[in-house]
Amino acid sequence: MFYAKDFIELDYKPAKDDLICLFKVKPAKGVPMEEACGAVASESSVGTWTNISTMEDSVRDMRARVFEVGKDYCKIAYPLKLFELGNMPQILSSIAGNVFGMKVVDKLRLEDFYSPPKMDRSFKGPKYGISGIRKLVKVSKRPLVGTIVKPKIGLSSKEHAKVAYDAWVGGCDIVKDDENLSNQTFNPFKRRVIEVLKMRDKAEKETGERKMYMPNITAETSEMLKRGKFVKSHGGEYIMVDVITAGWSALQTVRSAELGVIHAHRAMHAALTRDKSHGVSMLAIAKIARLIGVDQLHIGTAVGKMEGGAKEVREIDEEVEDDFIKGSNHVLNEEWSGIKPVFAVSSGGLHPGLVPALMRIMGNDVIIQMGGGIHGHPSGTRAGAAAARAAVEATMSGVPLNEWNSKELKQALNHWKVKL
Amino acid sequence: MFYAKDFIELDYKPAKDDLICLFKVKPAKGVPMEEACGAVASESSVGTWTNISTMEDSVRDMRARVFEVGKDYCKIAYPLKLFELGNMPQILSSIAGNVFGMKVVDKLRLEDFYSPPKMDRSFKGPKYGISGIRKLVKVSKRPLVGTIVKPKIGLSSKEHAKVAYDAWVGGCDIVKDDENLSNQTFNPFKRRVIEVLKMRDKAEKETGERKMYMPNITAETSEMLKRGKFVKSHGGEYIMVDVITAGWSALQTVRSAELGVIHAHRAMHAALTRDKSHGVSMLAIAKIARLIGVDQLHIGTAVGKMEGGAKEVREIDEEVEDDFIKGSNHVLNEEWSGIKPVFAVSSGGLHPGLVPALMRIMGNDVIIQMGGGIHGHPSGTRAGAAAARAAVEATMSGVPLNEWNSKELKQALNHWKVKL
Repeated sequence: MFYAKDFIELDYKPAKDDLICLFKVKPAKGVPMEEACGAVASESSVGTWTNISTMEDSVRDMRARVFEVGKDYCKIAYPLKLFELGNMPQILSSIAGNVFGMKVVDKLRLEDFYSPPKMDRSFKGPKYGISGIRKLVKVSKRPLVGTIVKPKIGLSSKEHAKVAYDAWVGGCDIVKDDENLSNQTFNPFKRRVIEVLKMRDKAEKETGERKMYMPNITAETSEMLKRGKFVKSHGGEYIMVDVITAGWSALQTVRSAELGVIHAHRAMHAALTRDKSHGVSMLAIAKIARLIGVDQLHIGTAVGKMEGGAKEVREIDEEVEDDFIKGSNHVLNEEWSGIKPVFAVSSGGLHPGLVPALMRIMGNDVIIQMGGGIHGHPSGTRAGAAAARAAVEATMSGVPLNEWNSKELKQALNHWKVKL
Repeated sequence: MFYAKDFIELDYKPAKDDLICLFKVKPAKGVPMEEACGAVASESSVGTWTNISTMEDSVRDMRARVFEVGKDYCKIAYPLKLFELGNMPQILSSIAGNVFGMKVVDKLRLEDFYSPPKMDRSFKGPKYGISGIRKLVKVSKRPLVGTIVKPKIGLSSKEHAKVAYDAWVGGCDIVKDDENLSNQTFNPFKRRVIEVLKMRDKAEKETGERKMYMPNITAETSEMLKRGKFVKSHGGEYIMVDVITAGWSALQTVRSAELGVIHAHRAMHAALTRDKSHGVSMLAIAKIARLIGVDQLHIGTAVGKMEGGAKEVREIDEEVEDDFIKGSNHVLNEEWSGIKPVFAVSSGGLHPGLVPALMRIMGNDVIIQMGGGIHGHPSGTRAGAAAARAAVEATMSGVPLNEWNSKELKQALNHWKVKL
């Protein structure tokens, strides 16, 4: 027989090649904690709910083992051969699949997973990463300044390109499409890419700086590849993919196609990540995205319009940008085995006055994106971009924002009334 | 200026082409319900958090409108031109994107969405659907009986094929891979497909019945297509995709490739669907899957090892199988515009004794899958399959299970001690 308890082995020392999961567990009423954890290990490896005639001893050796149980969490080790290397959907179907719906748990959250070196190396990881992007943009130390064209929906391709141009000449390094915009009738994808890249060339010429455009190619996979190739063939260096709504299979496909720097938006993530005791953590999602190989990833702001506290955002920031993660009570060790770091993106309700606080949390390796915080500037997009860039330069120089010599920044601070 | 209140229009009558969302809303502390709903409509259409210089009047006309606010829910109408038709990720990035992470709501759940006819027709829908599958399997009225090869992981390709054979000759119509199994070293995909299809032919010959194998092709998109083509070229009629972990972009690609009947597993759905006040409902996910065009979809059991009550499962069952849905207090009307019905699948902790209760909830158009409930039979897989089939035949004939003339069924009832 094969019960939940057969999956509990508290003196087990995980093997070097084991994948390890950290789950937060809230057992159903009347279910002992250990039994709930054992049931999770069973369902996510080789078990089923009843004894079966087809079970072999060799299969038993492939079981997952609960090797640590805490008050509200457990750690489970999975033998590597349970998984198909390089197949993210398969790995998730195992460790983050049916388990969330089991009646023996009221709530269950995949907090983190440790991917062993062999698994790390089965994924491509970022092609560019932080250093590749810095080289491309020719900005060596400071945070990059970006904007999202706003209003997010409704501008024509030409209007869109004009807003992008204003942002670039004002001081932005990067301009991205909103995630709601792909290929609508009022602003078709191809026309937009052509118009905006034309404006990018103009802005580069006028400012002497590199300027980047991140067109949103999110669509059905082959359409997404077509759009990415179109961007590349027209001199674009970036593509943007909404990774949760598009999905991991397609993201792997896009990564393999090498169409340029991949900017990853994360719409819908909070449906999975927001409840701190159920679902999948943003940390785990960020790890998945780094393994597959996005170059930039939205990880939160800690200070803007979206939920996500400073501690959580800082942990995710370290996870995607560092080469070695030392575990804590709710984060596992990670080595990353040569997988490049991802450039963290902060976006959502930001404005220039929030830059110093954001950089205290995120450091200099952050892409600071402001949408309303730039286009909402009293003197318009160009001034807004100048204010955003000035806020970054001031903070890099250790000068308080209100002492920095920038009319646009002073206007912004006054407009959004920030207490410094 | 453009505030949350500008997105509230309680006397608005949705246009024929509007997409409509039903959200369950729990505003953050101190935020009035209407303001929270307006903020959701704003973020998911044309708004941003501050007044912006680039806003045009023509864009204002494209705003979403909250047209009904209840105690804990609201209905929002979206003009069709906000969306790219046929692009499911784009549609979701809008209506099920950033909104889940907004600070103005503590919790937010997409309960349902109404897809207008023009949007319906921009997707393929199921190629086979219920009637196409019944024709293929040559079973006109009764529920189909299926099994998952167990143990889910660890059998060799030959052992796997043997289990499948036993299940078919015992009485199963359909055999599927477990979602944890794709192309692992101990049971490589191609070898498995060849071995199992050989056994399928043998079982068909011996029983005179059609037998179906659903190999799990879930992987990176192009690999998934390769696997699907391999199955088709070897005489397979079905493929299985784990739709949430693979993602919507890839599912659209697989649907377009026309590789056979698509069986959709839903691992990870409960990370999104389980909290009844946050995330995305299974009903909404089922609608997405039907629009894109899966032929079979796991929708719950109401009586097995997984959460999901009878009422919820019945509603999802109607949503995927009916041509017209009459709205209720938490389900919207739907017309389906010729999109074929999906064959509902019940799976997870089922055994023969649960068949009458399940058929009372789900009717005859259901695929009843038992894993442990077949392979856990005291006399093995073949007897287990016979018991499962007998339970279906008995219930179709209106005969109580314990009065049906089947030794295997009696054994099963005794083994799992069901009160009838």
